[in-house]
Amino acid sequence: MLTIGVDIGGTKVAAGVVDRDGQILDKVKYPTPAADPEGLADVVAKAVAELCGRQEPESVRAVGVGVAGFVDEDRATIQVAVNLGLHDEPLKERVQERVGLPVVIENDANAAAWAEARFGAGRGSDHIVCVTLGTGIGGGLVMGGALHRGRFGVAAEVGHYRMVPHGRRCACGNHGCWEQYASGRALVAEGQDRARTDPRAAERMLKLADGVVEQVEGHVITQAALEGDQAALECFGIVGEWVGLGLADLAAILDPECFVLGGGVSDAGSILLDPVRASFARHVSGRPGRRLAEVRLAELGGEAGIVGAGDLARH
Amino acid sequence: MLTIGVDIGGTKVAAGVVDRDGQILDKVKYPTPAADPEGLADVVAKAVAELCGRQEPESVRAVGVGVAGFVDEDRATIQVAVNLGLHDEPLKERVQERVGLPVVIENDANAAAWAEARFGAGRGSDHIVCVTLGTGIGGGLVMGGALHRGRFGVAAEVGHYRMVPHGRRCACGNHGCWEQYASGRALVAEGQDRARTDPRAAERMLKLADGVVEQVEGHVITQAALEGDQAALECFGIVGEWVGLGLADLAAILDPECFVLGGGVSDAGSILLDPVRASFARHVSGRPGRRLAEVRLAELGGEAGIVGAGDLARH
Amino acid sequence: MLTIGVDIGGTKVAAGVVDRDGQILDKVKYPTPAADPEGLADVVAKAVAELCGRQEPESVRAVGVGVAGFVDEDRATIQVAVNLGLHDEPLKERVQERVGLPVVIENDANAAAWAEARFGAGRGSDHIVCVTLGTGIGGGLVMGGALHRGRFGVAAEVGHYRMVPHGRRCACGNHGCWEQYASGRALVAEGQDRARTDPRAAERMLKLADGVVEQVEGHVITQAALEGDQAALECFGIVGEWVGLGLADLAAILDPECFVLGGGVSDAGSILLDPVRASFARHVSGRPGRRLAEVRLAELGGEAGIVGAGDLARH
Amino acid sequence: MLTIGVDIGGTKVAAGVVDRDGQILDKVKYPTPAADPEGLADVVAKAVAELCGRQEPESVRAVGVGVAGFVDEDRATIQVAVNLGLHDEPLKERVQERVGLPVVIENDANAAAWAEARFGAGRGSDHIVCVTLGTGIGGGLVMGGALHRGRFGVAAEVGHYRMVPHGRRCACGNHGCWEQYASGRALVAEGQDRARTDPRAAERMLKLADGVVEQVEGHVITQAALEGDQAALECFGIVGEWVGLGLADLAAILDPECFVLGGGVSDAGSILLDPVRASFARHVSGRPGRRLAEVRLAELGGEAGIVGAGDLARH
Repeated sequence: MLTIGVDIGGTKVAAGVVDRDGQILDKVKYPTPAADPEGLADVVAKAVAELCGRQEPESVRAVGVGVAGFVDEDRATIQVAVNLGLHDEPLKERVQERVGLPVVIENDANAAAWAEARFGAGRGSDHIVCVTLGTGIGGGLVMGGALHRGRFGVAAEVGHYRMVPHGRRCACGNHGCWEQYASGRALVAEGQDRARTDPRAAERMLKLADGVVEQVEGHVITQAALEGDQAALECFGIVGEWVGLGLADLAAILDPECFVLGGGVSDAGSILLDPVRASFARHVSGRPGRRLAEVRLAELGGEAGIVGAGDLARH
Repeated sequence: MLTIGVDIGGTKVAAGVVDRDGQILDKVKYPTPAADPEGLADVVAKAVAELCGRQEPESVRAVGVGVAGFVDEDRATIQVAVNLGLHDEPLKERVQERVGLPVVIENDANAAAWAEARFGAGRGSDHIVCVTLGTGIGGGLVMGGALHRGRFGVAAEVGHYRMVPHGRRCACGNHGCWEQYASGRALVAEGQDRARTDPRAAERMLKLADGVVEQVEGHVITQAALEGDQAALECFGIVGEWVGLGLADLAAILDPECFVLGGGVSDAGSILLDPVRASFARHVSGRPGRRLAEVRLAELGGEAGIVGAGDLARH
Repeated sequence: MLTIGVDIGGTKVAAGVVDRDGQILDKVKYPTPAADPEGLADVVAKAVAELCGRQEPESVRAVGVGVAGFVDEDRATIQVAVNLGLHDEPLKERVQERVGLPVVIENDANAAAWAEARFGAGRGSDHIVCVTLGTGIGGGLVMGGALHRGRFGVAAEVGHYRMVPHGRRCACGNHGCWEQYASGRALVAEGQDRARTDPRAAERMLKLADGVVEQVEGHVITQAALEGDQAALECFGIVGEWVGLGLADLAAILDPECFVLGGGVSDAGSILLDPVRASFARHVSGRPGRRLAEVRLAELGGEAGIVGAGDLARH
Repeated sequence: MLTIGVDIGGTKVAAGVVDRDGQILDKVKYPTPAADPEGLADVVAKAVAELCGRQEPESVRAVGVGVAGFVDEDRATIQVAVNLGLHDEPLKERVQERVGLPVVIENDANAAAWAEARFGAGRGSDHIVCVTLGTGIGGGLVMGGALHRGRFGVAAEVGHYRMVPHGRRCACGNHGCWEQYASGRALVAEGQDRARTDPRAAERMLKLADGVVEQVEGHVITQAALEGDQAALECFGIVGEWVGLGLADLAAILDPECFVLGGGVSDAGSILLDPVRASFARHVSGRPGRRLAEVRLAELGGEAGIVGAGDLARH
């Protein structure tokens, strides 16, 4: 039995045929229609039809769709997807009537977390917390072998638990959210602060950014850090410290077997992972004595969304 | 089918016969033997035998034991129970060989949470977070209708997630743990601070404490608050604010349907509940628009441990 | 003996003849020339000439100029005045050669503080801390009867001492500066947060702002608070709490006899002053027992800059 | 003209003849009488008589007495000196009637600061902030060439300005005081935390402490750090970071020319100074561009109290 996983991003709709082992057998991509619910359902249907047409008849049995937004608890309606311009969009129904297969809608971070838990860095474990360190922070919880979606479908918004009372303002309206300290945006803020206040120490980063503070972006800091630049490593050290603090909190609450770190910031590999693990070990409660959850890097990269959405459609 | 629930506390072992509806049909109590694993198992066995003897033969089919300590993921061994002086204690085996019935061991806060979720303030919902505001803070998570114990059996240690970086020192060795701000101990600290630095404002509390700052204990502050004393109400206001902040964090992570507040601090009823709800509503992310979890008071009181342990033995 | 005080603001240059008692005998105003150092000196000289011409010959003996910017320790050069577009500007020399009188340049907050200390809310005391709660926070210290300018002329930047580690980002590049919590901008942020997340509670403020969250400005919140609106009063309560916390820190360091609060936020009078005093009394160290500094509202309003600059020129 | 400086400590009274250049020409020591105001005045008088007897007649013209406690603004009465068991003690009068010379009483941290400002690390500058990193944190401010005592004589209690809102409890009754993060006690807390939670990393410190966590005291951490032990250096790094944060705040408020660090923690020399300077430079507002105050180690050691008290008596 095969399924199709669809990953609706801000610029492209990527879809793939997913088998029982989480392998992608075939794949297509289309541009995302802007703020056009019917058009979006059309594109998804087209991708599904194209992929189905290349498989044995009736071998594809269900479709899972991952989308960056709040999805209701019935996995049918997108409550809000800011980047796609969607509100209260009954995407499941629209796609289902076009493709004639069972459809489930899922938050994209949940889909990716599920993929990592089943086929990636978390396979073999029933208790996984995935943390996606992108511009902000996304999350996905697999507990007792099942995806934890919460009562209203919005669980795992770990980027918006409060790390610092009265802390940095967040776009969500609150102050001190974790993603203000431990995300890609936070990394860039550290790098640019350093470049602005201590240009000599930040010389290498500034050079890679053509001397423009505002161009000290994530890839600049990552490259400088990979070259061994001290100031860039310190930026990762600071962000890694905050990531580890957050994992310690999540461990106190959830007691997972492992944490899986994905997203652009995790591309730095051990440069991020080392300070994260040190911080986590130092800050988690119950030390010494406590059995520590492992902290691993995600393995599936950008395809996690397709694989997870496809696999969730199977269950 | 009946079960027996046992609640091992620091001073007494309470046991009861629990039916399918969470009713306690019969009950016994014995003093807790101090730091004596064999003696403890004997007492539990005696209580079970006594209760079984008064029921129809073979109607009791299993025993659940709740204990204040870390219980391993197999629900068999107590890793640490500081107050009982137990370490790596195979309590399940010891009790089982004495009573000849299947036995499960459970953390007491988990057992109580389960009881509230099934038969108390949380009944009818599959996603419950229980928070016990005693001297410290305990917790229990029911997610997807099941108790979430975590990979190593120590989930829901919500009292030790970090509320304030570099905050108040906690007995656990960390700084800034939630229970330093939102527990009974925190309430007492507020009351005594007020009594010490502004005795005039704290006049009523001091009077109830015979004029001794150190005797401004939880029941004193609660009584003064129930009488309408402004300073005491402010103490509850401050603690309630911190409780609500914590619930907002837990909502971001877990998205439960309801929170159930138990423990001694919750005896103050709406005096606690009102500031908690206001703080939660103000601090939760996703406002406005988000469907808010309810915040309720626990309903089962001191019997939740017996009921929960008994019911968990059934499943 | 008379002096002339000049207050250079972003839009206008106000100058006045100041007598020994801090009275303004005559006054003129001109628009501020934009980013034009020579033009600015011309305007100042014109104002001085005009005012001198209307007094007894030779009765005016010195000129003091207050300006919103960093002034060097010799009170001669403006290091930076962002709003006026000036850098390393030898204003003293330029004005002196035009007017033929001794000139001193002073930071405007220092000038205003000096005026309040000598002729306003702080008269009669030798140890005054002035805090100007405008868009940001400015300050002035009078200690031992003298203005404390610091070694490099930039003392009393109290708005940029760190109130919250890892706190809200400040335009100065740091995080957690006091002015992010206790200024007019902070008041507006509280009001708009409230309007956004809880429009029902913020109904009155929203109405005064024509229903537009972004138009919930300081005067709107002040008006609603003066009408008794609960949400607006809470905004002042929060900001007042932070103001008081800062005063407690300044008292620990400086032990002044009184604090003088000026700036737009202080226009709310007791609505601000009450929570400030309560917070200060609760948070200052050494309670009970410590003799508390008084907290007063500034008395000289917008003329403090002219009076202070003029009086400083006399000494 | 000579003066005598007296330094009253918890265990001994040290007195010395001080000349115009801050040199100690002669010195005596006696045990401190416990909680005995008359006895204390007798001892001070005895020391003064003994020292005077060995100088030219009438060459000694005044006596300055430094004491660890709050001294009133007239420099006559000790308001509270907890360690000496004194309250509202008119020490000036008692000593004066015994020795027949003018006497001034001064807080000991103020006296030491004055000595450093005049003859030690701060000589040549008019704007000095001295910070004594002992068990707690003491301070002394020299501004415009004069000791700043505040309106009520209790200025420079820099250890009790609030570094962290809702932070670590302080003996003063407040939370988050600077001395909870940046003092000798804070250093010991870091060392013991490390020893407790990560004994392997803290191996060297534990060895120097005979394996007992509670014996990881300041000298143990200092010795391990001087040997290059990583964990001990990290403890100094953390404390140094907090010291530097505090200096940044004091610079924003006071704009001194230099900071002088004394007290037991400063015995570690550059091991403390390096992280302090780095932290100060990173956190001070107005960077880049601001002229940075220097951070230096105190030079006069334990004799600063005698020298400063003696010199203050001269002025």
